[in-house]
Amino acid sequence: MPENENHRRSTVSVIGLGQMGSRLARAFLATGHRTTVWNRSGAKADALVAQGAVRAASAEAAIAASPLVVVCLPDYATVRELLDPLAEGLRDRVLVNLTSGTPEEASQTSEWAAANGADYLDGAAMSGTRLVGRPEALFVFSGSPHAFTTHREVLASLGKAMHLGADPALASVYDTALFGLAWGALAGFYHAVALVGAAGVEPSAFAAVATGHMPFVTSLMADHARQIEGARFPDDDGTVEVHAAAMGHLVEAGRSQGIGTEVPELISALLERAAVGGHGADGIASVIETITKGKQHV
Amino acid sequence: MPENENHRRSTVSVIGLGQMGSRLARAFLATGHRTTVWNRSGAKADALVAQGAVRAASAEAAIAASPLVVVCLPDYATVRELLDPLAEGLRDRVLVNLTSGTPEEASQTSEWAAANGADYLDGAAMSGTRLVGRPEALFVFSGSPHAFTTHREVLASLGKAMHLGADPALASVYDTALFGLAWGALAGFYHAVALVGAAGVEPSAFAAVATGHMPFVTSLMADHARQIEGARFPDDDGTVEVHAAAMGHLVEAGRSQGIGTEVPELISALLERAAVGGHGADGIASVIETITKGKQHV
Ligand SMILES: NC(=O)c1ccc[n+]([C@@H]2O[C@H](COP(=O)([O-])OP(=O)(O)OC[C@H]3O[C@@H](n4cnc5c(N)ncnc54)[C@H](OP(=O)(O)O)[C@@H]3O)[C@@H](O)[C@H]2O)c1
Ligand SMILES: NC(=O)c1ccc[n+]([C@@H]2O[C@H](COP(=O)([O-])OP(=O)(O)OC[C@H]3O[C@@H](n4cnc5c(N)ncnc54)[C@H](OP(=O)(O)O)[C@@H]3O)[C@@H](O)[C@H]2O)c1
Repeated sequence: MPENENHRRSTVSVIGLGQMGSRLARAFLATGHRTTVWNRSGAKADALVAQGAVRAASAEAAIAASPLVVVCLPDYATVRELLDPLAEGLRDRVLVNLTSGTPEEASQTSEWAAANGADYLDGAAMSGTRLVGRPEALFVFSGSPHAFTTHREVLASLGKAMHLGADPALASVYDTALFGLAWGALAGFYHAVALVGAAGVEPSAFAAVATGHMPFVTSLMADHARQIEGARFPDDDGTVEVHAAAMGHLVEAGRSQGIGTEVPELISALLERAAVGGHGADGIASVIETITKGKQHV
Repeated sequence: MPENENHRRSTVSVIGLGQMGSRLARAFLATGHRTTVWNRSGAKADALVAQGAVRAASAEAAIAASPLVVVCLPDYATVRELLDPLAEGLRDRVLVNLTSGTPEEASQTSEWAAANGADYLDGAAMSGTRLVGRPEALFVFSGSPHAFTTHREVLASLGKAMHLGADPALASVYDTALFGLAWGALAGFYHAVALVGAAGVEPSAFAAVATGHMPFVTSLMADHARQIEGARFPDDDGTVEVHAAAMGHLVEAGRSQGIGTEVPELISALLERAAVGGHGADGIASVIETITKGKQHV
């Protein structure tokens, strides 16, 4: 690409155009932001360039092109391997890293960025690639509050963009925790589908009713979070003992239908431990203590 | 109560005014339905009568007062114990039973009602007592479609009233399954709260982000239900292998924080079994097969 094509600066550069990175670039383009792109194997940029993206000749050129540089690579080792030799170019840039990694990696990369004069945001894409660019797609960010404020509108191109706090490790912490939350719900859902399936109910019929029930379940989370903060567990949503008995019936129902019962068995075990720990007559959010205290202490 | 006070018929009678029954009666009153009430220990009717309910002198009188009779008692044995001697009065009534029980109990009670000339709806209150009367409160019903159609508007006083089908056992089947679904989500939530708590994040801060993420998680249920119906598991939301690796990290994260790791361990086990069962490169909804086939077959 001739040098003069790059004379106008882009709003954002995207480095790494895999499954996720290409969606990020497309979302920036879709909201009318001038977007520069670079990928190791150049062909992955073609479709984006056809949609209006500016092709950078190198990662270095991509960094030079925009004040906001988004990287999305397989892991943090790859990020550092690629960016270490280009660190000088990052001075006064905002680096947004949407690569998945650990809290420690996020903290280290933030320090490395600071040492090179760059502002850093760690990020996590919570809703897969399909919904990127739609308001349901949750993107969490942590690190420089100033960087987030400055580029909030551009980052909101990706979906629902939330800043979790100044500690760059938070995005990774939330990423892991939200993944566990989603899987708890999915495991509960798959188990429920198996159970109603044994009674001849179609998965989609059940999913329609389940969808109507989830806002209530979600509303319990906010209530229970407050209870956990106050370490007071009123029984408005039923006591541990009543839920333990009901969960016991769920285990039996699964057994009598010949389906796997690990999901209700695990929940039964948590409830039983809460009861043994003195929470039998308390509200169900007291189950948190069987988790925070680990196996050995209860 | 003098006989003539009962000359005008009620729209609905509620028998059993415990925690749940009293809420049901209040919701009927709140939507302007003339409501007759009866409870074994009469004092529990006082507050409702003060709010405009008609006190019945006996369960028999309550049945006589309305075309629609809602019972909410501790268990089905109590329902039958109370109603058996009064069965004649149920002729041409619609009996709605919001007592919790098994699918078998619902089927038996439906047959008993039919033998006595009553139309029967089995029901389940899915959202506790607190929200009764609000649209978030899910009430599922099954049994006589005609009874549901006739009294749909009255039943909608309770919340979101859904009819699941003509088989009276369905409400109980869904009740059990939805309870398991809710608990999967809650177990995932409590575990997530414990995990972020170890990193200094307050439960309410996490709950706010979790609440923003749950509509996406819920949307997966509808998608995955369709995949399960077709027994085809595309990898749009990631493969079993990728999720198994990420869940492994979640187990490690929990261990290194000293919190209980049973929740992610269970999910890891389901994912590992799906992979061993040949679904490693399939989408995550294939995990259903590790549940429907039970432990022994995978
Ligand atoms: N896909 C998802 O649904 C999803 C969801 C949430 C988070 N994430 C995270 O997003 C990140 C990227 O995932 P992805 O699905 O987009 O991965 P992907 O499709 O495998 O793409 C990886 C990208 O990294 C590039 N790359 C790999 N090694 C490189 C190197 N040494 N130097 C320069 N570029 C290199 C690849 O370039 P080439 O084209 O030249 O190979 C490719 O563009 C990961 O951390 C992943 O965990 C993904
Ligand atoms: N509470 C909830 O959050 C909730 C949620 C979903 C489903 N449910 C289900 O709703 C049903 C009722 O629960 P609840 O919480 O309302 O129970 P509850 O507060 O214990 O009330 C039980 C009611 O049954 C009456 N009763 C008990 N034995 C009787 C008998 N032999 N003859 C006549 N009346 C009798 C009691 O009358 P007295 O006042 O005379 O003792 C009382 O009115 C249960 O099946 C429960 O599983 C409850």
